[in-house]
Amino acid sequence: MSRISQTPKPPYYAVVFTSELTGDHPEYERMSERMVALCTQQPDFLGAETARDERGVEITVSYWSSLESIQEWKEHAIHRVAQRAGKSDWYDRFATRICKVERDNFFER
Amino acid sequence: MSRISQTPKPPYYAVVFTSELTGDHPEYERMSERMVALCTQQPDFLGAETARDERGVEITVSYWSSLESIQEWKEHAIHRVAQRAGKSDWYDRFATRICKVERDNFFER
Repeated sequence: MSRISQTPKPPYYAVVFTSELTGDHPEYERMSERMVALCTQQPDFLGAETARDERGVEITVSYWSSLESIQEWKEHAIHRVAQRAGKSDWYDRFATRICKVERDNFFER
Repeated sequence: MSRISQTPKPPYYAVVFTSELTGDHPEYERMSERMVALCTQQPDFLGAETARDERGVEITVSYWSSLESIQEWKEHAIHRVAQRAGKSDWYDRFATRICKVERDNFFER
């Protein structure tokens, strides 16, 4: 199964979340999986891609069909609990970038 | 040293490149490093972030101050050689998304 999101024709929106983790936390794994599961229930959610390397750098890109849905997800009660835990325990640093996807291109062997 | 790019105030542009690799290739590592080194010499290049996980999913996000510079990099002669090798040897699938970064937010512990 592909790990690349099958997004619709642009324009749509992307949230690029790049983080540096403080270390390995089993509860971070559980929270991550729960957040992805919750995301998929949000209106206008189009998909998400994630990669974490052995240096503890993680990039997650989620795709949305509206800015309103991104804002709603940001304010989701359970997501806010995870955001607080992230700042207190899990992340040394992170950057969140809200983007409009203007063009895309897919390749499959 | 932070792996997160210190980008300027938006708007600027992001290229989100998500790929699934065919396997481990030592020459892919060398090509990747060479492409990053070449990128940093391009006009309007602002930085890049990358993470590759053990499943062979890689996400690289590069930042640029103009769409013209993204197009120039796409057409760069050495980059084109790497693009051809990517399609013939290295990637099972990839997606490239050209985005305008409208807002961002940084956290540091």
